Amino acid sequence: MDDTSETRRVATDYVDSLERRDWERFATLLAEDVVYEMPQTRERIRGRAGYLRFNVEYPGDWHLTTRRVVADGRFAALWLDVRVGAETMDACVWLDLDEHGLVRRITDFWPEAYEPPAGREHLVERW
Amino acid sequence: MDDTSETRRVATDYVDSLERRDWERFATLLAEDVVYEMPQTRERIRGRAGYLRFNVEYPGDWHLTTRRVVADGRFAALWLDVRVGAETMDACVWLDLDEHGLVRRITDFWPEAYEPPAGREHLVERW
Repeated sequence: MDDTSETRRVATDYVDSLERRDWERFATLLAEDVVYEMPQTRERIRGRAGYLRFNVEYPGDWHLTTRRVVADGRFAALWLDVRVGAETMDACVWLDLDEHGLVRRITDFWPEAYEPPAGREHLVERW
Repeated sequence: MDDTSETRRVATDYVDSLERRDWERFATLLAEDVVYEMPQTRERIRGRAGYLRFNVEYPGDWHLTTRRVVADGRFAALWLDVRVGAETMDACVWLDLDEHGLVRRITDFWPEAYEPPAGREHLVERW
């Protein structure tokens, strides 16, 4: 497999193993020194053990569906549909793989709903 | 060029022509029936003319820098650094190209800063 195919497989497995709470398989995808960042809160977790625990402890009955996976060399981007009970939101996840095909960096964005600014009603429709 | 190389070029030109306010070049990248969506505000713009005008009219002295471009067949994902004066934020942009290599769908996310929820201080560091 070339880098892109391998990256696409890892990105797909990343979501699938999270959704299944298959922690053993999830851990095998991660580099020992993986770094997880959430720029919106300026939070960072260093290392596989900590990031695994973060996911194991993450509250709520959350469920992930992949809307889009885009893989390119050792980079991937995931657009996820995340559901927690009746609440649904999008996530944008950026993965960097190392030379062994392990995830070494994850950057997670959680864009929240907000009211649009005034002044562009003449151009947009709402749904 | 294969689809992925062409998509990467279009994604790069998309950001570059916006940053330069090169509206003529920007318009040539878009399909006539392009659809632009912002899921956070549930806003949609249909058609090249409207989406072009939206960008021309967009307020503020905004500047775009590409942090990451990931291209895969006719899909691309862009992670942008957006600056408006002293304010800086991230954007996650998903592009779909049609069979002619034109952008036919854009999905734009603007993740805003927020305070982290309590309960994970034992796992995270802040920056």
